[in-house]
Amino acid sequence: MKKISTLLVLFSFLISTPAAFADEGMWTFDNPPLKQWKERYNFEPTKEWLDNVRLASVRLNDGGSGGFVSPNGLLVTNQHVAAGQLQKLSTKENDLTKNGFYARSRGEELKAPDLEVNVLVSFENVTERVQSAAQAGGSDKAASEQRKAVIAQIEKESIEKTGLKSDVVSFYSGGEYWLYRHKKYTDIRLVFAAEEQIAFFGGDYDNFTFPRHDLDVTFLRAYENGQPAKTPNFFKWSETGATDGEFVVASGSPGSTARLLTVAQLAYQRDVGNPLQKQVWTARLNALESYSKLGAEQARQAGGAMRSFSNSLKRLTGQQDGLLMPRMFAKKEAEEKTLKDELAKKPALQKIYAPAWEQISVAYGGLPAMAKRLAFSNLAAARLGTIALQLVRYSAEIKKPNDRRYDEFRDSRLESFKFGLLSPAPIYPELEETALTAWLAEGVKTLGANDPFVKAALGDADAAEVVKRAVRETKLKDVAFRKSLLEGGADAIANSTDPMIMLARRVEPIIRELRALNEEKILNVESSAGEKIAKARFAVYGRTIAPDANFNLRISYGKVKGYEEDTTLVPYKTTFFGLYDRAESFGEKPPYDLPVRYKNGRDKLDLSTPLNFVYTADTIGGNSGSPVINRSAELVGLNFDSNIQKLSNRYWYIEENEGSRAVAVHSAGILEALRKLYDAPELVRELTGK
Amino acid sequence: MKKISTLLVLFSFLISTPAAFADEGMWTFDNPPLKQWKERYNFEPTKEWLDNVRLASVRLNDGGSGGFVSPNGLLVTNQHVAAGQLQKLSTKENDLTKNGFYARSRGEELKAPDLEVNVLVSFENVTERVQSAAQAGGSDKAASEQRKAVIAQIEKESIEKTGLKSDVVSFYSGGEYWLYRHKKYTDIRLVFAAEEQIAFFGGDYDNFTFPRHDLDVTFLRAYENGQPAKTPNFFKWSETGATDGEFVVASGSPGSTARLLTVAQLAYQRDVGNPLQKQVWTARLNALESYSKLGAEQARQAGGAMRSFSNSLKRLTGQQDGLLMPRMFAKKEAEEKTLKDELAKKPALQKIYAPAWEQISVAYGGLPAMAKRLAFSNLAAARLGTIALQLVRYSAEIKKPNDRRYDEFRDSRLESFKFGLLSPAPIYPELEETALTAWLAEGVKTLGANDPFVKAALGDADAAEVVKRAVRETKLKDVAFRKSLLEGGADAIANSTDPMIMLARRVEPIIRELRALNEEKILNVESSAGEKIAKARFAVYGRTIAPDANFNLRISYGKVKGYEEDTTLVPYKTTFFGLYDRAESFGEKPPYDLPVRYKNGRDKLDLSTPLNFVYTADTIGGNSGSPVINRSAELVGLNFDSNIQKLSNRYWYIEENEGSRAVAVHSAGILEALRKLYDAPELVRELTGK
Repeated sequence: MKKISTLLVLFSFLISTPAAFADEGMWTFDNPPLKQWKERYNFEPTKEWLDNVRLASVRLNDGGSGGFVSPNGLLVTNQHVAAGQLQKLSTKENDLTKNGFYARSRGEELKAPDLEVNVLVSFENVTERVQSAAQAGGSDKAASEQRKAVIAQIEKESIEKTGLKSDVVSFYSGGEYWLYRHKKYTDIRLVFAAEEQIAFFGGDYDNFTFPRHDLDVTFLRAYENGQPAKTPNFFKWSETGATDGEFVVASGSPGSTARLLTVAQLAYQRDVGNPLQKQVWTARLNALESYSKLGAEQARQAGGAMRSFSNSLKRLTGQQDGLLMPRMFAKKEAEEKTLKDELAKKPALQKIYAPAWEQISVAYGGLPAMAKRLAFSNLAAARLGTIALQLVRYSAEIKKPNDRRYDEFRDSRLESFKFGLLSPAPIYPELEETALTAWLAEGVKTLGANDPFVKAALGDADAAEVVKRAVRETKLKDVAFRKSLLEGGADAIANSTDPMIMLARRVEPIIRELRALNEEKILNVESSAGEKIAKARFAVYGRTIAPDANFNLRISYGKVKGYEEDTTLVPYKTTFFGLYDRAESFGEKPPYDLPVRYKNGRDKLDLSTPLNFVYTADTIGGNSGSPVINRSAELVGLNFDSNIQKLSNRYWYIEENEGSRAVAVHSAGILEALRKLYDAPELVRELTGK
Repeated sequence: MKKISTLLVLFSFLISTPAAFADEGMWTFDNPPLKQWKERYNFEPTKEWLDNVRLASVRLNDGGSGGFVSPNGLLVTNQHVAAGQLQKLSTKENDLTKNGFYARSRGEELKAPDLEVNVLVSFENVTERVQSAAQAGGSDKAASEQRKAVIAQIEKESIEKTGLKSDVVSFYSGGEYWLYRHKKYTDIRLVFAAEEQIAFFGGDYDNFTFPRHDLDVTFLRAYENGQPAKTPNFFKWSETGATDGEFVVASGSPGSTARLLTVAQLAYQRDVGNPLQKQVWTARLNALESYSKLGAEQARQAGGAMRSFSNSLKRLTGQQDGLLMPRMFAKKEAEEKTLKDELAKKPALQKIYAPAWEQISVAYGGLPAMAKRLAFSNLAAARLGTIALQLVRYSAEIKKPNDRRYDEFRDSRLESFKFGLLSPAPIYPELEETALTAWLAEGVKTLGANDPFVKAALGDADAAEVVKRAVRETKLKDVAFRKSLLEGGADAIANSTDPMIMLARRVEPIIRELRALNEEKILNVESSAGEKIAKARFAVYGRTIAPDANFNLRISYGKVKGYEEDTTLVPYKTTFFGLYDRAESFGEKPPYDLPVRYKNGRDKLDLSTPLNFVYTADTIGGNSGSPVINRSAELVGLNFDSNIQKLSNRYWYIEENEGSRAVAVHSAGILEALRKLYDAPELVRELTGK
């Protein structure tokens, strides 16, 4: 029982207070919260400290974070971040998800099929150049096109100059634009993975829960030119790990927050967007669940995606619960009103920026009418469907000049695009068939048989029938065939009789039409209006508020600290004692069963070793695998979750007094397991030098 | 975070449903829930089973429950139930609360100073005789006096006939009267007590919490004629203890519930009674806390009472939180309305019973005006004050005929009264002085200097001054002096110059006047009206609802079962692993520090042994120490607490789906500790025969 009274006090305090709170914010490296660090934690990092942290941090394009932990390319992340690769490396005979993995020599390290890892090597403010490209007085559409053109130009120049992956990234809904240059690693090999039973001990029940007892850890190694990459910037592994009360920093790539949205945008998410998202994920999860019940091998194939959808749904429920609280909305409305009131004190600016809120509100008025079409008009439920659509779309886009293409087909993105498209990862046709059939059936149910997408996809036929043929007969399972279509150009696509390509060709015009509609009615308006609101906010508050997360590198901070719940105390950490208590207390029934290694190895462990811990930093999905480091940039833990009190932090920062916490694996617990249970002396030596 | 949505569903379901819910009810032994047991658990106990359970169950007059666990008078209860006696047996040099205790031979067993233990040996329905004594058409006052007279007569007859402690007890607010005969043990000796650090591990934080890790256990032995009592009815100790899902029964003496109160009575508790009670307990706790800060010995003296007040306040807060929920009141109003509507279908009865609600409502209208006076006009904050008032009051009451005295001075109660009054338990004058001074100061603050009680107590003097003299100079610390006054009669009291007696003499007329007023305006009305409402309820629902608890023996039932909380699962049990996890996780900071025996003995334990568990039975304060038994009447656990979800069950039964649970020490955990940590083979042999 959360203490409601405290919650009320909190909210009444928050209303109309625009300033950043204790430990709030996922900060960009160009604007770290130096003032807060100094004032609250007496911490003043050098430029070298910040550069080192940034260069030792990695983003995994599967959707997570990690960090280098040796000079030889060794990097650590969560087992659940690497779960997709583990599954792709698994077979019916050897399930790495279930069994875990340890390469006793470099020769045994397994190449991940399609994992790309990025390091942010430099960043440059290009706001002025991008914003000034949009000519005053033009339409939103014209402005968007002008911005796109200059962005493509900036990226092209950067690639030519540096050879680095170069992306112009928008912050503050277009309030700022930055050129981010990443070093890219695509030869990533698996060194170690914990068994899912221990990486995800307690399953979906204990997900977003603390106390927690998970060894959610994987080690990978980046290679260059067939050799371990030289990574002079890395986090030294702390053998003692996080201690109560200490200052820590999490460096990672939080995926998405929505704290700076307008009230109209939030109301849309609450009333339409989130319920629709729930329907989408539930439909996909249900299909996978029915498939997984066919047998152990089917369960293995569907396991990773099921875990992922369950996780997303649990998080979405928490976020929506927050958004449904009337007080939450009162706070958001008050914040918006305060900003408008402050803006009114600057009449010259008010005249330019104030209309933006109404522009967004008007645009969003039309969104519910097309939301279901936007959500269901795709083939993403099957990897084969995705591949087919990518090929069809690529063949059309590549013919255009660079600055007129869809964002994802700009020259700057093509290498990563092809890396994913041509991945040798296994495809399971039966799983694909079940998933895509269920998806289209849900589409028919939701959109009706006369919907343009439905008609284009199915004609008069049954979803099962269309999908059966498309999945069974397509040759897209073959990487070489994909490559031939990719290289064959528009003709090869246009003339293909592959049934999945044909299905994609039929639906693509509908999808393009919807995308254009969405850009015109919503996205272009959001870009223009968003820029105005951002400028209004800068004018009033300066640059004291961190931008919303966008899966680029951020730095969060806080302290290791327990909390109060249900009138009792939750300690800052758990130990191996707690792991065995929880397993025993449930009679080791799944999801509270232990890997054999843990059952048999109990007496080898020092059970008082810390296993997980909590800290107050502001994180969100995408921060999974973020190194949690101390003042000396030593890795004291590995972020892997948040507790339930923190779920609605997508929309607003939740004070530490509310018990909102990030959850991490403790560095000492990882070492203890590696030493005593996994017999991994080489890995331990690489981490500790011992 | 309790899942509010579930809560709403629950309440909408409860509204206007009068029937008993799953596992609801603290049942008297004359009306055990045989139907529910058979239907839900396929359990059909024999009369012998029920008789044995009743005769093996004990009530401790310090306010708790227990059970015989050997044929030689050995009984088990909670450490916290015996805490008062432990403190009275302690000295500055040997603090049994802190150090625990184990008598390695019978000769080492320590006699508790003033503990009385009762066994319910028979019961008899005397409703007809009591109710018919009140003549129709008379006033409420006359009716009360007439009932009192016949009650005194019934008790007297029973004592003369059986020699047993005989009390006429009211159930259903006077809807039924039963003659309860108890066998009384007053020579109770201490055999074993766990250290408070482990009996109350986690302190006030973990109180009313689960998962929990407390060995809240004391063993006592009843003696008769200087020899261990023969107790052929006892609970066999289960070595395996409670298992997941099994049917269990708790047999004990729940103190007080308020589920059958009228809406007017509940509204009074919510708006006046509970806030006032909170003030009273907070004032007393604060005084003790300030005293305890003076040093270790002072902390020892005040420790037990502080623990007790903290416990009461945490419980009261939970109860009041429940009562403040608008839906709770909607439910109560709906229940009352349903009963009235059903009554209306029986016009003859309606005519007699229906006015009762209004009568209570009118009476309660005048209660707030005198509530503060009733709460503060006493000297109960100091034991010396209590003793003085008891002596003064006794001297006046004893002169009256038996049936005209205050209830507590009826012949049937005198033995127990004198046993308590003449207890040799130590009295700490400095503690008494601090507590009584603070109490009177709070009285002055609350009632004002012109209040009759305040004026009588203090005149124009300061509380500190009056109390200082009374406490320091009184001879009441001396048991022999008390005895001389007890036997000296009214003259001895009237002529006494003992300053505490003089203080009591001054305030006693005020207290009597208030008591008379309360009886006239409230209690007599409640008795008459309560009887009518009870009869209305019987007429509508029969005897399907258990009476409110009144510290007499009851039987509760349910199953051993975990629950869901915060979207995760709470297991049905904890293990010693969990104890060490929690201690380690808090760095063994108090209240999470362990006794030395536990720190040093860790490796001796099988850490997977269950320590505590939860079950669904309907219990409340007073059930502490209740044996939790299985179908074979084997003791599988020892009730010691409820979790926080259950706190408001004073006012209504909370469904198991809400996570409401009773908490017990596991019988296997107790054995494991006795064997491995306490080296108590004699005690283990007596419990297990091994």
